[in-house]
Amino acid sequence: MGASQEKRKVLMMLVENNYGVTSRISGVFSRRGFNIDSFTGCDTLDQRYSRITVVVRGDDRSLDQIEKQVSKLEDVLYITDLASCESVCRMLMLFKVKVQPEQRESLMAVTDIFHGHIVDVTRDSMIIEMTGKREKLNAFIDVLDDYEILEVSSSGMIGLERGAETARKPGVNCRLKE
Amino acid sequence: MGASQEKRKVLMMLVENNYGVTSRISGVFSRRGFNIDSFTGCDTLDQRYSRITVVVRGDDRSLDQIEKQVSKLEDVLYITDLASCESVCRMLMLFKVKVQPEQRESLMAVTDIFHGHIVDVTRDSMIIEMTGKREKLNAFIDVLDDYEILEVSSSGMIGLERGAETARKPGVNCRLKE
Repeated sequence: MGASQEKRKVLMMLVENNYGVTSRISGVFSRRGFNIDSFTGCDTLDQRYSRITVVVRGDDRSLDQIEKQVSKLEDVLYITDLASCESVCRMLMLFKVKVQPEQRESLMAVTDIFHGHIVDVTRDSMIIEMTGKREKLNAFIDVLDDYEILEVSSSGMIGLERGAETARKPGVNCRLKE
Repeated sequence: MGASQEKRKVLMMLVENNYGVTSRISGVFSRRGFNIDSFTGCDTLDQRYSRITVVVRGDDRSLDQIEKQVSKLEDVLYITDLASCESVCRMLMLFKVKVQPEQRESLMAVTDIFHGHIVDVTRDSMIIEMTGKREKLNAFIDVLDDYEILEVSSSGMIGLERGAETARKPGVNCRLKE
């Protein structure tokens, strides 16, 4: 009721690539009824490890609790909140927009201003690729109000801590599998 | 044993934004012991729906089975394999690379050729943002062999079907929540 303000954590973890790790970690959040903005899990360059990034909302206390609980999982080798340390966070979004031929040029101009890319064009639609922080993407979505957004796909937030010293963790100096 | 060749599906779903949906869907894959390359779930512009994209490997038969099984979940409103239809797929990767001052320029040049962006620089490291298809990102990783990759974070693959007519699905004409 206005007393507890909702905050966001960007929990980035390095986890062992065991079967079911995605399901176990997402299970911890869902059992506690958390609002998950995004859940992104992907292999690293080392087959043994995956990186999972979860953007979660809640009050300070419950967010601290969930971070602790996740860190206790055996699969989790490392966890950090990118929102509360020096980090670089980015998100990828794909927008499919309804565009008549006479609107194409203006949409291309706007996309260019936001350093996005047109990655597909059909007779009556365009797909735009845009990366950035949340604020930039929201600003772009505002501009798209002048058009009809047909579909959106988003990667959710991913990120890395700044500086070379954070890399002293397991599974970071490694090559990608094919 | 060479007999059953491994293939990839890019399963993109529109799901109802119910509590635990991420966990339920990832559970289906993990119970069957699937190799998941990436799992990406994020809100859409409509609070009621999320979009989940899973890149999964296996033989033809088991991939078809898992697609069917996932599509039977009540949460799942729509599912398609982006790898087997006309689609645009992209992935975002962040690379933290160890770079001495005298190497900066050459790494910037390479990043530029691949249309990537330097998003952070410290005395001895750089973070590079790169989007593209799998092949392009693998080519960039090959080039990075000349440097020391400290950390990588990846969004996993996301995508959209081409053309405006695919948008006749629930939950697509909608606005983003704050």
